[in-house]
Amino acid sequence: MSQIRIGIAGLGVVGAETVRQIMSSQDILSQRAGKNLKIVGVSARDETKDRGFSLDDIVFYTDPLKLLDHDDIDVIVELIGGEEGVALSLCQNALRGGKHVITANKAMIAHHGFSLSKLAEDNNVTLQFEAAVAGGIPAIKILREGLAGNQIETVAGILNGTCNYILSEMTSSKSAFLDVLKEAQNKGFAEADPSFDIDGVDAAHKLAILSAIAFEQKIDFSSLSISGIRHVSDIDIDYAGKLGYCLKLLGIAQRDGPAEVTMALISDDEQLSSVNGALNAVSYSGAPVKSSICIGPGAGAGPTSSAILADLIDISRGLANYAYGNPIELLSEQKLTFQTSKEQCYYLRIGVTDKPGVLSNISAVLRDHGLSIASMIQNGQSEDGPVFLVLTTHKCAKIDIEQAAEVIAHAEHVLHSPMVIPIFDRGFFN
Amino acid sequence: MSQIRIGIAGLGVVGAETVRQIMSSQDILSQRAGKNLKIVGVSARDETKDRGFSLDDIVFYTDPLKLLDHDDIDVIVELIGGEEGVALSLCQNALRGGKHVITANKAMIAHHGFSLSKLAEDNNVTLQFEAAVAGGIPAIKILREGLAGNQIETVAGILNGTCNYILSEMTSSKSAFLDVLKEAQNKGFAEADPSFDIDGVDAAHKLAILSAIAFEQKIDFSSLSISGIRHVSDIDIDYAGKLGYCLKLLGIAQRDGPAEVTMALISDDEQLSSVNGALNAVSYSGAPVKSSICIGPGAGAGPTSSAILADLIDISRGLANYAYGNPIELLSEQKLTFQTSKEQCYYLRIGVTDKPGVLSNISAVLRDHGLSIASMIQNGQSEDGPVFLVLTTHKCAKIDIEQAAEVIAHAEHVLHSPMVIPIFDRGFFN
Repeated sequence: MSQIRIGIAGLGVVGAETVRQIMSSQDILSQRAGKNLKIVGVSARDETKDRGFSLDDIVFYTDPLKLLDHDDIDVIVELIGGEEGVALSLCQNALRGGKHVITANKAMIAHHGFSLSKLAEDNNVTLQFEAAVAGGIPAIKILREGLAGNQIETVAGILNGTCNYILSEMTSSKSAFLDVLKEAQNKGFAEADPSFDIDGVDAAHKLAILSAIAFEQKIDFSSLSISGIRHVSDIDIDYAGKLGYCLKLLGIAQRDGPAEVTMALISDDEQLSSVNGALNAVSYSGAPVKSSICIGPGAGAGPTSSAILADLIDISRGLANYAYGNPIELLSEQKLTFQTSKEQCYYLRIGVTDKPGVLSNISAVLRDHGLSIASMIQNGQSEDGPVFLVLTTHKCAKIDIEQAAEVIAHAEHVLHSPMVIPIFDRGFFN
Repeated sequence: MSQIRIGIAGLGVVGAETVRQIMSSQDILSQRAGKNLKIVGVSARDETKDRGFSLDDIVFYTDPLKLLDHDDIDVIVELIGGEEGVALSLCQNALRGGKHVITANKAMIAHHGFSLSKLAEDNNVTLQFEAAVAGGIPAIKILREGLAGNQIETVAGILNGTCNYILSEMTSSKSAFLDVLKEAQNKGFAEADPSFDIDGVDAAHKLAILSAIAFEQKIDFSSLSISGIRHVSDIDIDYAGKLGYCLKLLGIAQRDGPAEVTMALISDDEQLSSVNGALNAVSYSGAPVKSSICIGPGAGAGPTSSAILADLIDISRGLANYAYGNPIELLSEQKLTFQTSKEQCYYLRIGVTDKPGVLSNISAVLRDHGLSIASMIQNGQSEDGPVFLVLTTHKCAKIDIEQAAEVIAHAEHVLHSPMVIPIFDRGFFN
């Protein structure tokens, strides 16, 4: 059996687990790969750290770029991370040197995936990044190959496990955001600096990658509309529940429509609403398949290494090809746009002081923006605190609800900017 | 762009939809395939039937085997159906003649998949059958490629849309089996002769195929334990709901354990329990991925043609390889066995006449078989009809519950054989 020789850059939790998996399942993985999987070199900051495996017979570097000097390495597995810097240099130079590249680096792929993939084509090697999106779900392969016969219309998902964990905990324990975030940090489910997760950037990286494959377009990451869960309130989660919805951070992209990461109310009837904890989910709809949804762990050493191993076996078997399903020159320029956003329903929560005429003022603003009310909840009177007016609208344009909210924010007796959350009703994803 | 020339045998709903898709999306599908998709010949019983597309430039045969005379056909798409007969002859001879084969024929693959796949290897072509299992879910590709780095421990699923539709309807409308079956037949969700579906055979075909790939074993179809929903009662669905379970027809195979199609009570917390209507679902668990579940339409022209097109694009791109992930000679002989069935909990419903001592007799039988009771419901007294005693057990061996049920069936005041249904509790699939 011939060999496939591997260099692994980065021995954090994912890198170390990948090495352990290859070592402990060498025979079975090599059989499936049709080649003997051999780790030739690794790089990490600290050689002495105990990672539970022996580095005998493996060359160790502190500088990952040294792996490129090995003419005998066929595949570089990049697990350093970071949008640019050494990770990008390593991948560029590996591809230029005729080495295949596997990476889990979603930031790098969201920003530089097209140029890297072109570099791979030009050098007759492949770039694969299944691990960059929802490790436990073969989300990219499903889209690029399993659903290759379809015109995909919508790709959507719960793409960040940290946010989904926080929202699920807030829902089940009726706790406040900051308390749950702190608990998640203590349990290792959230980073010390959680911005990348809770501001929606991580989910947006994954959405950009999925959108490019789904719509065969060169998605410009800066065109995505991104918001996170930093301003989520347990009050909204509570009202959402009363209205038959679940509050999720959703990444959603529609063909020729917008790609956005946003908090969303999802109908309790939808499969996505039952995806709780740190799980991820990706939902596809299009023709002729109608719709399909996959649910699984999105992060962590095990699921991520599962995706890396799949890429490794595909490359060994000769089953890896264009990362985006097509040569880069055949991808069209981006058609995604904010302007064509489809109409949908919205949830609106407005904190007011309980004075006569408030509701009349607000409903006049809504009327003036062409918005019609689908349902309304007003909680009881309150002497000191705010009274909440919670409305859902019928379908309307995003621009109209945003402009109405802006006017309402400055109306008399309104205490703060209204909370506006889009609603994804039953059947939206089908 | 070079061509890939296609012969389609069978123009039923799936065959006709496949032709329509290729014709209407010729450019985009050809781009993804890297080759121009060209339908050269088709076969069906009736040439004159209006199928919504023109047969100009396509050679029509009533005998599918005539397609084999075309040296210029690269791929045969077999959509005739039937475990053997002309479908099998066509596939065997196509492979022998150096033509790739795509089929949606689960019965044929469950029985003859290994020999056909060997024939493909020997002739340097590929056999692909993604459409044979849950069309709208790329279930085979996920297992064979997307999760290729894993040791899969359990593959389970809702594999028959007709049964799931019937059970979902019985649950939501509290109707009897025969009424719902009749309604399903009127709506076209069930065949005039529904045996293949409702007796679990169709689900078993799919389970056998998934198991072979998951466990890299030559699964002998006759070793599967198969039961269906013919004897389901709305009474059990009602009790299941009271106990926090949903009643589903489940196909489940465990590594070195049994492969069976059985009615099952699935905890309301499990994702599988929320899969309703004609949908299918496939759940995978193993290491390092932990678990993943995919849900989508299992049958129908659209989803099935989606799977066929995916196989066609893979073959065109050179991304199709061993159908079972490995050369056939590397699959091990079957290790699945009934004997090693893992212990689990069971639901037991016993119809009795309401006499003193009945419960005491029954509980003595259970004790004698080493079974301990987890919960019990007994409905009120009844003068004329039976009284139902509904029990759930703690974990026990299948053989013990079956023997106990056999004894109970013949006990005094017991009106019929107890209904025994395995329980899949929270976390079973994770």
